[in-house]
Amino acid sequence: MDTPAVEPVKRYLLGLQDEVTAGLEALDGAGTFRRDVFESPAGGVVRPRVLSEGAAFERAAVNFSHTVGSRLPPAATTTRPGLAEAPFEAVSMSVIVHPWNPYAPTAHENLRFFVARPAGAPPVWWFGGGFDLTPHYGFEDDAVHWHRAARDACKPFGEDVHARFKQACDEYFTVRHRREARGIGGLFFDDLNEETFGGFGRTFAFLRSAGAAFLPAYARIVERRKQLPYGEREREFQLYRRGRYVEFNLVYDRGTLYGLQSGGRVESILASLPPLVRWQYDWQPEPGSPEARLTEVFLTPRDWLADD
Amino acid sequence: MDTPAVEPVKRYLLGLQDEVTAGLEALDGAGTFRRDVFESPAGGVVRPRVLSEGAAFERAAVNFSHTVGSRLPPAATTTRPGLAEAPFEAVSMSVIVHPWNPYAPTAHENLRFFVARPAGAPPVWWFGGGFDLTPHYGFEDDAVHWHRAARDACKPFGEDVHARFKQACDEYFTVRHRREARGIGGLFFDDLNEETFGGFGRTFAFLRSAGAAFLPAYARIVERRKQLPYGEREREFQLYRRGRYVEFNLVYDRGTLYGLQSGGRVESILASLPPLVRWQYDWQPEPGSPEARLTEVFLTPRDWLADD
Repeated sequence: MDTPAVEPVKRYLLGLQDEVTAGLEALDGAGTFRRDVFESPAGGVVRPRVLSEGAAFERAAVNFSHTVGSRLPPAATTTRPGLAEAPFEAVSMSVIVHPWNPYAPTAHENLRFFVARPAGAPPVWWFGGGFDLTPHYGFEDDAVHWHRAARDACKPFGEDVHARFKQACDEYFTVRHRREARGIGGLFFDDLNEETFGGFGRTFAFLRSAGAAFLPAYARIVERRKQLPYGEREREFQLYRRGRYVEFNLVYDRGTLYGLQSGGRVESILASLPPLVRWQYDWQPEPGSPEARLTEVFLTPRDWLADD
Repeated sequence: MDTPAVEPVKRYLLGLQDEVTAGLEALDGAGTFRRDVFESPAGGVVRPRVLSEGAAFERAAVNFSHTVGSRLPPAATTTRPGLAEAPFEAVSMSVIVHPWNPYAPTAHENLRFFVARPAGAPPVWWFGGGFDLTPHYGFEDDAVHWHRAARDACKPFGEDVHARFKQACDEYFTVRHRREARGIGGLFFDDLNEETFGGFGRTFAFLRSAGAAFLPAYARIVERRKQLPYGEREREFQLYRRGRYVEFNLVYDRGTLYGLQSGGRVESILASLPPLVRWQYDWQPEPGSPEARLTEVFLTPRDWLADD
């Protein structure tokens, strides 16, 4: 299969949405996703699913969207400004999970496929996406486990693929004004096509490999952490750290800005924001505390698999 | 006085910062501002003042900054892109108050003065600023009182001044992706100089008139509302509405983006963010409730002084 087509990618992402939704419900053990479907007159569809105040998850959102647009928003492609304003189709599936337990990390995944149809030129397609993890308290074994899953998903596609997309993830998920990583990273890729990665079939296969890795990798970490006892101190720190998440998503995140620029459904786009957030002026963790260790050890890009 | 100079504006804004700080402490009745001073090697200074968890105010920030920079950030002027990258000086004073009581509105004021010195051309200066009010629960008499203060501050400078800057405020403080006003507005002006408003002396006098109007207008509203009894419902709605404030400040606010782009002190810039914020997926107020009235009546630009 090497003819780029939206339909098979759409089918795959809809199926993955079902899988992730079911998997997160099982992991939560009590909450269920509210399932909506909105169709647009232009032929697009949004299928948001949000779980609120479950047993393990304070909020989880698993969103699918198929956009049929007459003008590609500038945020959609940074490498081909010539395509801005071209008619396009995009399918996208994204996941964001904010657990209650401060020891369980926030997780994010996004997978997307674009086809732009510039006037008087052949269609242009590309895949983008990845997944990353944002702990509030750092655990070395969670970090190693997470990056192993990312490496294993990349392995069949070449020796350098993991290093390349791990580095891109570290670069992308940076809260620039804080000079701080958003989390411990994972994979990030964008503008993948025949020039930058491979033919449609091979690139789509890579997307599926990344897509399949997310849920099992995250589920194992949540299983380990969701029952750990915690108190007000850890909860307050979690709410405080969530502020960084909001800062990143609203100031820098390409997917969020793309969604807001393209007139997407605001409640679906901003379902990625944490349910409760705290900003505290000029707060500093106590030296040597677990809270200080987070930024010192975990929020600086590093090779978690150096000893593997 | 018609020679533009940073020094007198700086002196005025430093004095106003002292006045507003003292006024808000008196209004709070218990809390005090933490006062810091940071000097930069380039000759600039930041004088942040933050009050946390007072009696009336959950957070108030009154910030002064004098920036001496080698390259003007793009967000600093939208009308003269040719000045981006020019050496510049800027003095700015800003106020943001987040009261505890959901019936007391959030208030914001900013006053700023820029001088850019492009290579091989005469210096260019301009004033900007304004003030605006963001209620969580709407009161007609507060809105009328607030806009009267704004009108009175503008009156000595011409018949059309208030209408022009009131409209600019309504346009600027729009949460575009929500198609919703951030609050009930007030005054907003930018790029004021001899071409757009008047000479340096007259424009500086207007800045002082706007600056003098803010505290008394806001204090009267806080006095009226800070003791009203409220419960969990009102508090939850306040936290929810604060989400809109964060969305505006991080996605659209020129001052915030300017600060983050120019490498300003992050904790001072983001002291404008509310201390505690809630996002709730797809929440809708009950029809006919005070919460529904806020958006229906107050968050749509209108002429609050039509009957005056």
